[in-house]
Amino acid sequence: MKKTLQFYQDIFIKRFESINFIKSPEELYQPIDYALKAGGKRLRPVLTLMICDFYGNNMEDAINPAIAIETFHNFTLVHDDIMDDAPIRRGRPTVYSKYGTNIGILSGDTMFTKAYEFVTLTREDKLPAVLKVFTKTAMEVCEGQQLDMNFEKMTEVSMAEYMHMILLKTAVLMGACMKIGAILGNATQEECDAIYQFGEHTGMVFQLQDDLLDTFGDEQTFGKRIGGDIIDSKKTYLYVNTMSKLSDAERMEFQKLYNNKTIAETEKINKVKEVFINSNVISDCKSEMHKHHELAMAALNKSNLNAEQKAVLQEFAESMLVRGF
Amino acid sequence: MKKTLQFYQDIFIKRFESINFIKSPEELYQPIDYALKAGGKRLRPVLTLMICDFYGNNMEDAINPAIAIETFHNFTLVHDDIMDDAPIRRGRPTVYSKYGTNIGILSGDTMFTKAYEFVTLTREDKLPAVLKVFTKTAMEVCEGQQLDMNFEKMTEVSMAEYMHMILLKTAVLMGACMKIGAILGNATQEECDAIYQFGEHTGMVFQLQDDLLDTFGDEQTFGKRIGGDIIDSKKTYLYVNTMSKLSDAERMEFQKLYNNKTIAETEKINKVKEVFINSNVISDCKSEMHKHHELAMAALNKSNLNAEQKAVLQEFAESMLVRGF
Repeated sequence: MKKTLQFYQDIFIKRFESINFIKSPEELYQPIDYALKAGGKRLRPVLTLMICDFYGNNMEDAINPAIAIETFHNFTLVHDDIMDDAPIRRGRPTVYSKYGTNIGILSGDTMFTKAYEFVTLTREDKLPAVLKVFTKTAMEVCEGQQLDMNFEKMTEVSMAEYMHMILLKTAVLMGACMKIGAILGNATQEECDAIYQFGEHTGMVFQLQDDLLDTFGDEQTFGKRIGGDIIDSKKTYLYVNTMSKLSDAERMEFQKLYNNKTIAETEKINKVKEVFINSNVISDCKSEMHKHHELAMAALNKSNLNAEQKAVLQEFAESMLVRGF
Repeated sequence: MKKTLQFYQDIFIKRFESINFIKSPEELYQPIDYALKAGGKRLRPVLTLMICDFYGNNMEDAINPAIAIETFHNFTLVHDDIMDDAPIRRGRPTVYSKYGTNIGILSGDTMFTKAYEFVTLTREDKLPAVLKVFTKTAMEVCEGQQLDMNFEKMTEVSMAEYMHMILLKTAVLMGACMKIGAILGNATQEECDAIYQFGEHTGMVFQLQDDLLDTFGDEQTFGKRIGGDIIDSKKTYLYVNTMSKLSDAERMEFQKLYNNKTIAETEKINKVKEVFINSNVISDCKSEMHKHHELAMAALNKSNLNAEQKAVLQEFAESMLVRGF
């Protein structure tokens, strides 16, 4: 039987949903349970399980590290939502807006600790290596969030700065979850590095597609309001790319529109979209995505996974290029 | 030469002060450096070094775990100060009041990650044990902070609840820093447990003395404003003990005074102090401290440390009973 992503997703979600996160004091653990039981694709931990199983046929060894990764990822969302003043996530109030900022901070801290608790359950011979990748990645994700916050105050952000930010904030965790899977599956150092590259480039594709969907996606399919980045004047790929192409005069005008907080939302979204489209931003973003997709495939082909396994990963990578949600 | 606490303190502070925490992005790491270079006694990591050296004569193995403990402790202060709205710590603006709440949250998260980075540098044969104690303790400290926040909203807090809160919020970290020292010094499981008990009970003494000093300390020696807990209506040992002794009518009246936000500060402090003194709270607190001191000494005597080493630890424990700062 060919083991697809779905196969591992079913296993992970069943295991993860069965964990009882609630203990005393409930004021602390109830919000954690709320944050962790919000559903979602659980993409990162599923990839950890799958890669471990591909290399070592020992998926069970990857369960706790996979739970650690999912818990860590959700911790970052809880704290990011405070920093970004975001009231809604996945159609529900965010933790801090439901329980208050203090609880948001502290239950986030506790989730981060909980993530390490699951790392601690890694089999001992793999623990040092897993811990190292996990901690390095956590540090990079924090740095990425800081860069993203810095962008809010900067008038101009270069494309290199933007790509570096999404690398840290989003892509490295995709690399890390796959690398941790490879480590646990007893892959060689070269294999681990190749699979990390595959994950990282796939993560870049994921984030660029996210930027596209936020403006050009279908509200029903995407599951969140279209145009949020434009309303919030976020410096996305679309914005940075467009800015780099405009004349000085056009740039001034576009900047004014993009930072306008008084204009009607729909009007702002439509006007900005028009500038994006005229700047050919969709096609640029797609070609940037394809560049990273090619790099991901090159890394995958350096690995010694078998043809069937490579096909599953290729299918996954391709789905990142075209996903609508 | 007899190795005193001061001996290890000099070594640790020299090592710790020489670390350069600043890297890019500076907006993230500057506040971390600010938080970590605030001075202080560095009691917890110094104890880690000392206990490791006492057992195994291999202090160098304890340096990175000790730095991890100090970094973790300071992370908790950065986040606690946000949750407690505390503008000043050690005579300087707190991180969030100097750099803003978002930076306070994120640089705190990064300090927590940094703490784990130092844990990761533990020698590999001791890593699993150290990681386990460290993570368990971090979890308990979060729970203690939550209980402390819960107390703000509770009208009555029992003495048992109060003691449980300070155990988690303060004492377990004192136990953990010593136990980690013992683990690194190759002590047996029984020794590690005995030294943990010693540390935990000493931590209880430390916190109870802190409660006393906040109200009855000398402003010059203590280094912070006297009466802060009273002004903030904090549920301390003094408050909980007093409440348990008053008649129903007196309790109503005292509660009203303690929660009064409009009365002049000096008047409130003096009036509350008078009730404390009449309730014999100082002597009760001292006898509670002595109870924990006795338990600490009993645990110490179960250990196989030599007479000179025990004398150094006894001197340390006794200093916690009488410290003025």
